[in-house]
Amino acid sequence: MIKIGIAGYGNLGRGVEYALRRCPDMELVGIFTRRDPSSVKTVGCTAVYPMEAAESMKDRIDVMILCGGSANDLPQQTPAFARLFNVVDSFDTHAKIPEHFAHVDQAAREGGKVGIISVGWDPGLFSLVRLLAQGVLPDGADYTFWGKGVSQGHSDAIRRIEGVLDARQYTIPCEDALARVRAGEMPQLAAREKHLRECFVVAEEGADLNAIEQVIKTMPNYFADYDTTVHFISREELLREHGGIPHGGRVIRTGKSGEGSNGHVVEFSLKLDSNPEFTAGVLVAYARAAARLSANGESGCKTVLDIAPIYLHPQSPEELRAHLL
Amino acid sequence: MIKIGIAGYGNLGRGVEYALRRCPDMELVGIFTRRDPSSVKTVGCTAVYPMEAAESMKDRIDVMILCGGSANDLPQQTPAFARLFNVVDSFDTHAKIPEHFAHVDQAAREGGKVGIISVGWDPGLFSLVRLLAQGVLPDGADYTFWGKGVSQGHSDAIRRIEGVLDARQYTIPCEDALARVRAGEMPQLAAREKHLRECFVVAEEGADLNAIEQVIKTMPNYFADYDTTVHFISREELLREHGGIPHGGRVIRTGKSGEGSNGHVVEFSLKLDSNPEFTAGVLVAYARAAARLSANGESGCKTVLDIAPIYLHPQSPEELRAHLL
Repeated sequence: MIKIGIAGYGNLGRGVEYALRRCPDMELVGIFTRRDPSSVKTVGCTAVYPMEAAESMKDRIDVMILCGGSANDLPQQTPAFARLFNVVDSFDTHAKIPEHFAHVDQAAREGGKVGIISVGWDPGLFSLVRLLAQGVLPDGADYTFWGKGVSQGHSDAIRRIEGVLDARQYTIPCEDALARVRAGEMPQLAAREKHLRECFVVAEEGADLNAIEQVIKTMPNYFADYDTTVHFISREELLREHGGIPHGGRVIRTGKSGEGSNGHVVEFSLKLDSNPEFTAGVLVAYARAAARLSANGESGCKTVLDIAPIYLHPQSPEELRAHLL
Repeated sequence: MIKIGIAGYGNLGRGVEYALRRCPDMELVGIFTRRDPSSVKTVGCTAVYPMEAAESMKDRIDVMILCGGSANDLPQQTPAFARLFNVVDSFDTHAKIPEHFAHVDQAAREGGKVGIISVGWDPGLFSLVRLLAQGVLPDGADYTFWGKGVSQGHSDAIRRIEGVLDARQYTIPCEDALARVRAGEMPQLAAREKHLRECFVVAEEGADLNAIEQVIKTMPNYFADYDTTVHFISREELLREHGGIPHGGRVIRTGKSGEGSNGHVVEFSLKLDSNPEFTAGVLVAYARAAARLSANGESGCKTVLDIAPIYLHPQSPEELRAHLL
């Protein structure tokens, strides 16, 4: 049995708790939180501890799954925990991955532990497919499309606008661009040509709706470079129709081989009913890998690119070769 | 530079020769054939040697890519070469993989070499995606659909019928089954419900076309369990319209997480203009891995499930983390 701890208990932490119920080779030892443990309502009867109690339990936990946020939690938390535990995190600030890797690598080597960072679907499974497709088709172009799905970052950006009570933003891939990519055209696509943004906004009573719509549509980085539509709806409708956290996307690489060939299309797509729950499933599979790599005597920071697939599956190499290969 | 040899020069060997032209980190040393070397017309100015000359060149070649067939060539060839070279093959007789693995493993360990078997897209990339999807979504079901594409085995089976001069068989996935799988129904599907078989046949003049059609449609293992359509066409039309070797397919896994979720859909698809050329691209990427693993001091037999993705890509781990993850 691989003994697991969860550090941080929001949507992602809860998703990990659910995912572990489907893994008979893993056991959840406890959830660690910065909140008052007695205030945390878990899915099962899992014990909840204050974050500071983790260190005293380091011999009872094989892998700590870190479920904090990339902006404020993980840059400090992952290196700190990697001195004490094998860890897995979902750090997703692409530009800061090399820096985060260096910090976690140093800490994990000092602690003799394995730290796997940036686990999830992007970065994560999508990165892995990008690498595979580039390796197999060196002469080509690749594309990532996201959605249809809820972007938390864009939803939050709308919520910060004066007069807005709540909001949900969907990122939607442009069908026309998808068709051109799949046809092997290898087009150069501007941000506006790849994705649409659709916003559902609950405004305060009496707020200037035109002004809010303008602020959204012209917001730099988030919306200005896209075709954006804004719908004002009631709070009830938002909760009823837009309460889930679906997401998904696809990585496509088209490339040529030989001389006469028109080209090949490699496509990997995800359609996720719940973004945090699926991400949790990826974290749990890589936690299995972290435990096994550590048992093999490895240490230091790794990413999904460094992990042999066989470490992710509960079955033995012999079973996998016989039945899955 | 990774120095490569090609053993066997049919469609796959030629595909490898093309693929290597797109890999600046690899160099093709020679092609080895059982035919008269002077009769082999290569794509480039590659030197062609008799198969027996390979052993004398073992210090000049880092990886030998074996391009023979799974039925008659590879069961003997791969273990024999694995004593002398790091090797990669595309052995695709699923039921015999454990036996082939054992033979190659013993030979490669004795020779201190790395042998990677069953490399291609199925087995190969599809196996890898099946493993990933099962690891991430343990509670689900997966499906493999092939096509639309040419099945060489089924085409050959038709060619062996009396009165048949040539034939091409396409395997076609059933759209209805695909839609049910993607909708998360997790249906139990019979062979007939998953794929159609479409045959283009050139018959001898005066042959009994009805009899040929009946032999095809009732052929056990190959056609009897499927809805099969047969078209008789001229040799000219066969060459003009059905001269390519396209193929492809998709692996889909649907599964549930959490409690309320309707489920997730993971889908990996390939649309290949030339089956052997794409397979060759996969072989070349894994040849890179074989060279690197061998340089790290590893030996023995491996499959795509055992290889960390990072070994497949020419760029350094630092570059990949910074730009691709």
